Amino acid sequence: MNVSNAPRANAVIGQSGGPTAVINASLVGVIEQACQYAEIRNLYGAVHAVNGIVNEQFIDLKTVSRGELELVASSPSSALGSSRDKPDQAYCERIFEVFKKRDVRYFFYIGGNDSANTAHIINEMAARVGYDLRSFHVPKTIDNDLLVTDHCPGYGTAATFVANALMGDDLDNRALSGVKIDVIMGRHAGFLTAASALGRQRDDDGPHLVYVPEHGVSMDQFVSDVEAVYRRLGRCVVAVSEGIADTDGETWAKKLADNAEVDAHGNIQLSGTGALADFLSGQVKEKLGIGRVRADTFGYLQRSFAGLQSRVDASEARECGRQAVEFSMQYESGSVAMIRTGDGADYGVRYERTDLSSVAEKTKSLPRAFINAQGNHVTDAFIQYALPLTGGLVKTGYLGNRPRV
Amino acid sequence: MNVSNAPRANAVIGQSGGPTAVINASLVGVIEQACQYAEIRNLYGAVHAVNGIVNEQFIDLKTVSRGELELVASSPSSALGSSRDKPDQAYCERIFEVFKKRDVRYFFYIGGNDSANTAHIINEMAARVGYDLRSFHVPKTIDNDLLVTDHCPGYGTAATFVANALMGDDLDNRALSGVKIDVIMGRHAGFLTAASALGRQRDDDGPHLVYVPEHGVSMDQFVSDVEAVYRRLGRCVVAVSEGIADTDGETWAKKLADNAEVDAHGNIQLSGTGALADFLSGQVKEKLGIGRVRADTFGYLQRSFAGLQSRVDASEARECGRQAVEFSMQYESGSVAMIRTGDGADYGVRYERTDLSSVAEKTKSLPRAFINAQGNHVTDAFIQYALPLTGGLVKTGYLGNRPRV
Repeated sequence: MNVSNAPRANAVIGQSGGPTAVINASLVGVIEQACQYAEIRNLYGAVHAVNGIVNEQFIDLKTVSRGELELVASSPSSALGSSRDKPDQAYCERIFEVFKKRDVRYFFYIGGNDSANTAHIINEMAARVGYDLRSFHVPKTIDNDLLVTDHCPGYGTAATFVANALMGDDLDNRALSGVKIDVIMGRHAGFLTAASALGRQRDDDGPHLVYVPEHGVSMDQFVSDVEAVYRRLGRCVVAVSEGIADTDGETWAKKLADNAEVDAHGNIQLSGTGALADFLSGQVKEKLGIGRVRADTFGYLQRSFAGLQSRVDASEARECGRQAVEFSMQYESGSVAMIRTGDGADYGVRYERTDLSSVAEKTKSLPRAFINAQGNHVTDAFIQYALPLTGGLVKTGYLGNRPRV
Repeated sequence: MNVSNAPRANAVIGQSGGPTAVINASLVGVIEQACQYAEIRNLYGAVHAVNGIVNEQFIDLKTVSRGELELVASSPSSALGSSRDKPDQAYCERIFEVFKKRDVRYFFYIGGNDSANTAHIINEMAARVGYDLRSFHVPKTIDNDLLVTDHCPGYGTAATFVANALMGDDLDNRALSGVKIDVIMGRHAGFLTAASALGRQRDDDGPHLVYVPEHGVSMDQFVSDVEAVYRRLGRCVVAVSEGIADTDGETWAKKLADNAEVDAHGNIQLSGTGALADFLSGQVKEKLGIGRVRADTFGYLQRSFAGLQSRVDASEARECGRQAVEFSMQYESGSVAMIRTGDGADYGVRYERTDLSSVAEKTKSLPRAFINAQGNHVTDAFIQYALPLTGGLVKTGYLGNRPRV
């Protein structure tokens, strides 16, 4: 709903869920744009997201120096602190009470689909009692699984990390041959695992096999795929999603987990453990008798590695923050969505407001068109989609394929 | 021994052992300097190190274009391929036979202390029969454990990777509090684990605890250290070497390993498994009852991550390669050593030839002066030593410590 007369009042901003490398760029985008509007009096940063709101742990963001803001914008993780709290109706009422008490009429919440839902619940609460609240969600997730937007801030940098990791790891595997298995974040969506293929430059570059959660694979098929590559090249690099599932749809990680730890959102905790990687390398060793089999689980480095940002991702994340403020001057609620306007050399996006309800509590999967027919690699269509988000990858050199003298 | 009349003959270069981010910079340094000397006729690159020599798998390095050489110099891993073969006397005789057959009188071998030993054995073999062989070792290792040289090419970039990882991970841990344990490469030497502390900027920045192989710690002490930090800060980030040992001197990894895999050098294979990380996080969870405990094992990313090189490390690695060629025109054998000429803003090194025997089969440990009294962190002396090798680290921003309003 397009509304006029933006109120002159205070604003709250929070960062929720798992950090990314550019969620702070979005934060700084909101701050710098909020400073352009007299309508926004104080800009309160909620420390540890909704938790900081209900406990009134706020900092004054309009007093942060430009220099410090730029340091924050280039730093990974959530500079305000984050939270895994998933507010229910009662929790949202406490938030709303604080908003009324502090005359907060602008709410910017950077996060995934759960955060969009929180913004949505509070917005409806305010609407019911005629309280003019502008409630906006700024998208963020390395999983790239939000609806409406073409892609999510945070994904491009995580994809760059994973691509660089696999480029290096593939060169390492060329130097000392064997089977290498890399387990990559993404419980349900395979976008990040698929990014492992973005840096391939030579025909025989790895990853040679890519397994995403969207396409179940039996252990026999997995081992047989590895064997075929190993026979052909004398080595094999495999990218596997932490959420990879068997053909019956159950994840291998779940099958392994005796004491699966479940977070407040009902997600099973898969990161921070090498169990899946060790299991997969054990299967390959045992069934194929290959001596050198190694496995790494990339873990939190994928979302929080200092000094690495995709230029495109950082710039888009910041603009998403700015646009949320722009939209808040005209609309009562919404989420910021990027619409792709061109591909390849013409890559670009425009920014649109979309309803919170279109993003809240929903996720998308890696499209079937991005997965090859056998379900063990990505397609060119995926590369076309994802490569621009990295802002370009480095080229590498390798000499071992040259003719012998 | 200083010799004159460098022979006009062919040269062989090889890269051995675990890859690093700058071993290719050393390779390119050798190539470009070898091209300056008419004494070096053909420059053969041995594919997969000594394995490529005995099997005569050579490529012609003087025909590689300048553009491709620069791509190689900036790429991680060993562009010629590597090998874990540790040549004995019989193996070295086969190498020497190929050298004689192909009129090879210059041998450049980039690697660790085992590689220096290989160069040494072959050099003595040649000396015994009066064959003029110039045998040179170029230092390389992320472990930084070679003697004579102030530090080793490869370490500065691996240290930068680990420092950036911990900077990001510490910010992540601030956002979502808990205990985070990071397991870092280095079986016997703690230099790389110690590098986890290089990026600390604020008093309460992690890592809050650093455990290196040189100082044994009991599980009770480890858990008690974590508890003390967690009580003080509400969170704790721990850097642990894969080679961390109990007070009885036995590594925890070995205690855990039922089927320890042993490589040809007698080293137990600790990388590529999450067992130690999972064990440590399990201990903290169980004994302290802290809900959010996570652990990552950094794995091969530490040595082979595309797009990341310490400027200082890459430049020194290349110069070590060049210097090996320079020394080969004047001496019959040696290893290249860097001697530090200044610290801090005056940081610099000069390059010296040292005897192969002073480097071969020897290792150094993290000096006691680099480890704090309690054995659970590094000292300022270590920071002074290691920080220049990164070429400077990024600064980060964090807002959660600001006053509440």
